[in-house]
Amino acid sequence: MARINDCYLDLAAGYLFPEIARRVAAFSKEHPGANVIRLGIGDVTRPLPPAIIAALHAAVDEMAGAKTFKGYGPEQGYPFLRELIAECDYRARGAAIDPDEVFISDGSKCDTGNIQEIFAHDARVAVADPVYPVYVDSTVMGGRAGAPDGKGRFARVIYMPCAREKSFLPDLPSEAPDLIYLCFPNNPTGAVAPREVLARWVDYARRTGAVILFDAAYEAYISDPAIPRTIYEIPGAREVALEFRSFSKTAGFTGTRCAFTVVPRDAAGRDGKGNRVPLHGLWNRRHSTKFNGASYIVQRGAAAVYSPEGKAQVRETIACYMASAHAIREGLGKLGYEVHGGLNAPYIWLRTPRGLSSWDFFDRLLREAHVVGTPGSGFGPSGEGYLRLSAFGERAAIEEAIARIGRLG
Amino acid sequence: MARINDCYLDLAAGYLFPEIARRVAAFSKEHPGANVIRLGIGDVTRPLPPAIIAALHAAVDEMAGAKTFKGYGPEQGYPFLRELIAECDYRARGAAIDPDEVFISDGSKCDTGNIQEIFAHDARVAVADPVYPVYVDSTVMGGRAGAPDGKGRFARVIYMPCAREKSFLPDLPSEAPDLIYLCFPNNPTGAVAPREVLARWVDYARRTGAVILFDAAYEAYISDPAIPRTIYEIPGAREVALEFRSFSKTAGFTGTRCAFTVVPRDAAGRDGKGNRVPLHGLWNRRHSTKFNGASYIVQRGAAAVYSPEGKAQVRETIACYMASAHAIREGLGKLGYEVHGGLNAPYIWLRTPRGLSSWDFFDRLLREAHVVGTPGSGFGPSGEGYLRLSAFGERAAIEEAIARIGRLG
Repeated sequence: MARINDCYLDLAAGYLFPEIARRVAAFSKEHPGANVIRLGIGDVTRPLPPAIIAALHAAVDEMAGAKTFKGYGPEQGYPFLRELIAECDYRARGAAIDPDEVFISDGSKCDTGNIQEIFAHDARVAVADPVYPVYVDSTVMGGRAGAPDGKGRFARVIYMPCAREKSFLPDLPSEAPDLIYLCFPNNPTGAVAPREVLARWVDYARRTGAVILFDAAYEAYISDPAIPRTIYEIPGAREVALEFRSFSKTAGFTGTRCAFTVVPRDAAGRDGKGNRVPLHGLWNRRHSTKFNGASYIVQRGAAAVYSPEGKAQVRETIACYMASAHAIREGLGKLGYEVHGGLNAPYIWLRTPRGLSSWDFFDRLLREAHVVGTPGSGFGPSGEGYLRLSAFGERAAIEEAIARIGRLG
Repeated sequence: MARINDCYLDLAAGYLFPEIARRVAAFSKEHPGANVIRLGIGDVTRPLPPAIIAALHAAVDEMAGAKTFKGYGPEQGYPFLRELIAECDYRARGAAIDPDEVFISDGSKCDTGNIQEIFAHDARVAVADPVYPVYVDSTVMGGRAGAPDGKGRFARVIYMPCAREKSFLPDLPSEAPDLIYLCFPNNPTGAVAPREVLARWVDYARRTGAVILFDAAYEAYISDPAIPRTIYEIPGAREVALEFRSFSKTAGFTGTRCAFTVVPRDAAGRDGKGNRVPLHGLWNRRHSTKFNGASYIVQRGAAAVYSPEGKAQVRETIACYMASAHAIREGLGKLGYEVHGGLNAPYIWLRTPRGLSSWDFFDRLLREAHVVGTPGSGFGPSGEGYLRLSAFGERAAIEEAIARIGRLG
């Protein structure tokens, strides 16, 4: 019988969100009348704005005509979209990124996992703690994590705790990693990295030769103009950082699917003989061999995000979510809870009261307030004692959730 | 500096289609007036049929409404599509496949490459020769190919030559592989596997413990009712075969993007301790960790392929392509060429005249008839002496191409 990839057997058995779903389903079965408000999973709820809908319809119509039909597109994405991204997301912010450094895909979850394939099998990976679980699971699947310790940690993964005293920003790692996952604005803590913090990471990577895998999926939620929206605002980042972006949280594409990865031509690794090898060519080869391009229709929808109407409509959607985030912050703050995040990110990182564990507080909120959050400990040991609340719910439901939490006493 | 995956350096430098594009571009630059007819790359040309267009528009409209908007869907695909596939593609043909054994994705190119990740790092891979290059390139990238021999072959890949005398069907491999890529109807040869041939493969896999990776991307082109449309028509295949299917060639989705992989619950591998491990759970974990579901809009379009109107319209499109395939077969046959394929597949496998090499014949056709094919040698050494012609072009262009080849003498 064919041998399987044994690393899969090392993966934590219960992924966080299925466990939450299980507990919510059990509760709802016991209490069929309960109106459960879900502030757990980070999925958007507002419809796609009109400019994007119009572009999607127009692209569907193109698919109906013999002269305008589109078959295989460029695996890297259509130039119309790559150029808009380079111009609007990067050059407009002083970051020199060329269209051919932008690789369109169908999702950042794919990209942040798949990127490991162009690196050595024994590359050391550093992640923040707490962390988006996909980075670690992809590391395990790729055989780069080493032995599990039975408590959800792996011998070869370098963990970087994010302490409350340090604004949930990780310290530089004590051991030297090859790859460093950074996510700002952060999922789950909602923390953002000021310019000097990002500059310190770029400097560290340049000194040590590490590559930064920068997940900027939530950049559209940054309202503070002093916070960089891309790591390429930092001089030298082109040499050491790859950036992952998505239309999911920016423009409501979680069900529509479009994202991109930036691989600057200056970024490089070394081969077994010590030769410098640009990462751009490696990712281009991976992307064109194992991916067939994102849907043309969807790419047209994504391009509409950059039209004047699209920009305005997307800003409005994000403003709605951020108003909800502020409502949660204010509301829970007034009730005496310690709240973090929610200022430049759609996530609120709520400290559990009276030293309750994350799961105990989760259960209490579910049973007594019928509100679902995400236990912080599910994102790593340093998340213990916190709960993540997301601001993507409907405003009325969010107000109701705050009121119910207020009645908990 | 971070170590790269050195296996990428072993990949053949020039992928086949870029080299073709380079030669065609050079010719067109020299002869700007030439009307070049492209029968090379296997991309569809006819627009999406009305039933699919209507479904896509309806899904876009759902995305515009607060009540009908869709965020993240199930990573495995929506039940409405998985159920249609299980019913129409499998149960209707007597193949017992459950909806939860169907994993919707955005493309078979991704799936046929990614599937290797759930198997051991040192799994032995068998491929036909000639072969769709992606299987081999993915094997190289995953570190399973061994050392390159400098002529495009790899030490640990098991090649299965497909000889003209054996209807281009591969013999059983001499060494025992863990994974066997089979593609029927075949790209590039257009060969199909009769029931007894597939039964022999299933029997071989059951005896040896190998897993068959069955690429059925062109099954919709089978017109002979005696030829199986899925490997699951063969008893026992559920234990040893995974099947890859795509809407690309079936319904014109090359630019729209939707495909699926069937992983039966009976298929298994073994872990390092010799324990049996079902592949379904492994692929489910890979798919839900490193993929975020196919676009809802596109899945709705794919579902329309199974409506009565959709089925009729898709059949009509395929009939057009197959009429072109027959025209090429007949036309070139009358001119004295030796032609294979094109009966149950959109590809014609044309033997080069007078022992010309594939590339020499390619160049002659390009320069003298302004017709572009795909050199058979680009698919492997056993493809030498052949040219692949695809039947996806417009009918008038195909007739013109045949006439021009006739004037070559």
